[in-house]
Amino acid sequence: MDSYLIQVNSQGDHVPLLDIHLKTNGNSMSLGKVKGRKPRWAVRASEMSKKTFNPVRAIVDSMKVDPNPKKAMISLSLGDPTVFGNLPTNDEVTQAMKEALDSGRYNGYAPSVGYQSCREAVAAYYNCPEAPLEAQDVILTSGCSQAIELALAVLANPGQNILVPRPGFSLYKTLALSMGIEVKLYNLMPEKSWEIDLKHLESLVDEKTACVIVNNPSNPCGSVFSKSHLQKILAVASRQCVPILADEIYGDMVFADCKYEPIATLSTNVPILSCGGLAKRWLVPGWRMGWILIHDRRDIFGNEIRDGLIRLSQRILGPCTIVQGALERILHRTPPDFYHNTLSILKSNADLCYAALSAIPGLQPVRPAGAMYLMVEIEMEHFPEFENDVEFTERLISEQSVFCLPATCFEYPNFFRVVITVPEEMILEACSRIQEFCETHYQGAEGAQDLECDK
Amino acid sequence: MDSYLIQVNSQGDHVPLLDIHLKTNGNSMSLGKVKGRKPRWAVRASEMSKKTFNPVRAIVDSMKVDPNPKKAMISLSLGDPTVFGNLPTNDEVTQAMKEALDSGRYNGYAPSVGYQSCREAVAAYYNCPEAPLEAQDVILTSGCSQAIELALAVLANPGQNILVPRPGFSLYKTLALSMGIEVKLYNLMPEKSWEIDLKHLESLVDEKTACVIVNNPSNPCGSVFSKSHLQKILAVASRQCVPILADEIYGDMVFADCKYEPIATLSTNVPILSCGGLAKRWLVPGWRMGWILIHDRRDIFGNEIRDGLIRLSQRILGPCTIVQGALERILHRTPPDFYHNTLSILKSNADLCYAALSAIPGLQPVRPAGAMYLMVEIEMEHFPEFENDVEFTERLISEQSVFCLPATCFEYPNFFRVVITVPEEMILEACSRIQEFCETHYQGAEGAQDLECDK
Ligand SMILES: Cc1ncc(COP(=O)(O)O)c(C=O)c1O
Ligand SMILES: Cc1ncc(COP(=O)(O)O)c(C=O)c1O
Repeated sequence: MDSYLIQVNSQGDHVPLLDIHLKTNGNSMSLGKVKGRKPRWAVRASEMSKKTFNPVRAIVDSMKVDPNPKKAMISLSLGDPTVFGNLPTNDEVTQAMKEALDSGRYNGYAPSVGYQSCREAVAAYYNCPEAPLEAQDVILTSGCSQAIELALAVLANPGQNILVPRPGFSLYKTLALSMGIEVKLYNLMPEKSWEIDLKHLESLVDEKTACVIVNNPSNPCGSVFSKSHLQKILAVASRQCVPILADEIYGDMVFADCKYEPIATLSTNVPILSCGGLAKRWLVPGWRMGWILIHDRRDIFGNEIRDGLIRLSQRILGPCTIVQGALERILHRTPPDFYHNTLSILKSNADLCYAALSAIPGLQPVRPAGAMYLMVEIEMEHFPEFENDVEFTERLISEQSVFCLPATCFEYPNFFRVVITVPEEMILEACSRIQEFCETHYQGAEGAQDLECDK
Repeated sequence: MDSYLIQVNSQGDHVPLLDIHLKTNGNSMSLGKVKGRKPRWAVRASEMSKKTFNPVRAIVDSMKVDPNPKKAMISLSLGDPTVFGNLPTNDEVTQAMKEALDSGRYNGYAPSVGYQSCREAVAAYYNCPEAPLEAQDVILTSGCSQAIELALAVLANPGQNILVPRPGFSLYKTLALSMGIEVKLYNLMPEKSWEIDLKHLESLVDEKTACVIVNNPSNPCGSVFSKSHLQKILAVASRQCVPILADEIYGDMVFADCKYEPIATLSTNVPILSCGGLAKRWLVPGWRMGWILIHDRRDIFGNEIRDGLIRLSQRILGPCTIVQGALERILHRTPPDFYHNTLSILKSNADLCYAALSAIPGLQPVRPAGAMYLMVEIEMEHFPEFENDVEFTERLISEQSVFCLPATCFEYPNFFRVVITVPEEMILEACSRIQEFCETHYQGAEGAQDLECDK
């Protein structure tokens, strides 16, 4: 941007300043204060705040959501498992917090990367022979969101790019764009249980690629990568020498019939920052406890990335110390039954929902294997009334009072995402309303053609 | 930076990439991956992570701190009032947390700017006729540190500058430089109880000035601005049309003989973002609960700054929901005695410390009126053995096992800062050791000259 300076005569010691606006290329441009005349107020929000943009909010806010007043609203849109009270956290988790409170030992400042004892507890919990971890490999953060923010902030410079799954969690793009980092989307393939299109992934790597984000298990897909698929992803990263940012916030949240493999346990050379936290598995997303696990057995990150993460952590300091104080007990004393119970509820909801939606004309759900979501394809050719997934889900609200996120929120038009943490009755009721909705609007091959002719 | 591309023959669908380093102007420069040859690992920490720099850490880490093994260490360096157990938080504060835990209502995600009810509680607590506040004027953050980060991030673009007090809290500079914002230091005057040199302040304003940071009560000075001084600061801001970022984390923490005025209560036109939190007054810095109060009666910030703050808050989401759930009760039920008691301990420690240090040859303490600190001038001409405050405080550790931060940490050489939250006996013991230290090293006018001649 060019900069014009207008010099005006002035008197006195402390020259008053003048604020001037010019139009340049049609954009209003503040010249700020120029010595000489009385200044005017002109406070503008920064470019960065304007570039910080949450697509889910933008899309949802733009939807005309007036639910059908005759039907109670059912929201299957929020990735918050606590909303309906059917998935409470475990009592040990709450007791651990009270113990930390009562001890009086966790009110002061912790080191910005977290208490040493908590870092040890997380390291011990995730340590394994294939991917050893020590306290120094753990950085505690304010939720997995801050873990991702710090990981991106240390790995990428403005002007570099990161490879991000499509469909994928919108925060990656929100954070990257606000930091001036370019986002390149690699495709997931619904017909292969949302495996990565590895050729596409590899073709996107260029000299400016700072990292690949691998989200497993996946939001919004509910998919879980097999060991062999993860090995192939690692082979790409290894061949191209691109580090991995693994978003494993849904780690271990997989249904009984499949296995979760932390990606770092399968690699001996690719440097990996694995981001996780308490939010989902322990069902306390509001507590804002996250972490970065640094896996770097070949010393490729080296001290530079570690020191960078430590420095960045000093900007706002880590997570709440009471949660830190409770962490060791949460990790070690939460009974295995609690995790099993959560997963069996999720699995049962997933099965119900999958079965119900499979029977609906015009919808193609993809069976999930973990996390808390299920993606559903809308065969748009059978719903010629609707332009796209946003219109489809909008009308689903106004007619049936059922709210699902249009997958445009995840850069994946013509799908919608269903959250399966809601109580069973609600899932069933929602599915039967979705059925009614689809039956009302479904057009068979002929009908669709008719409508085509009407145009 | 120039960019060189080296084209090499290649085969196959997915061209392997080559990573090359060149020396340019003596700096190693990564060209990243260039199509053609086998890539090499070259992961570098981002520029931003390198620019994120905490001067306190850097100075303290570089000090050769081997305390005298014959004397127990006394640390007067940390702005953490909880370290010695003499200033516990109030039982109501802890109970409020347990209530929030037991309710089970605060485990899920809150809106990124905080629960509406909590924003209301904070607004009600700080609301007053001169500076009315509603829920929408409150943004909850992860500590006052994040409040300052968001406030700077919304107000300033890279290339702009902010005006920061000297001496002052180091986080302002750390955050600003990491965002590419320039820092201009305005002087505080020790001989005027650390009032701002207003002429100097005003002379620093230029067309790129995004805001003035006003920290009252002050870290590291322990000073409290009078109403009339605050009015003069506002007059400068008003004349120059520069918004104020008020760091009021020590708000209300003033000794009985003076009065704390929130700067926003004295202004009708200057737009102000006031940053605060639970850390200091409620003695729970580790809990990471902070806030921004938006004061904008002339609608100068307008929706743009408000929306910008909301967008920025979505990057990592706000503070721990359990602390949010406890907030209303903390604000309304903490007994007034608790605050009085804290302040009377601080005042008594301040008086003791001031009196003891005043009697020491070569030291000039400045009497504090609030917060938790006291600044002491070292008459360096009487301590010719020491180059500067860093060496002085270094030797104080090795000889007397007393650790005070050299004020170089606050851009103010030849002073050191004493934290007055430690138990009385410790303050007294520390002061008597400082006395012994100064008496050992003090050189009267003659002695100093002798030493000069020896050189
Ligand atoms: C894939 C994914 N990563 C990260 C997060 C953020 O986790 P946290 O709430 O711990 O910040 C979420 C939250 O929904 C998520 O779905
Ligand atoms: C002047 C000042 N502002 C802000 C802060 C940061 O407060 P918080 O711990 O709530 O982030 C401190 C902490 O010492 C401080 O002294």
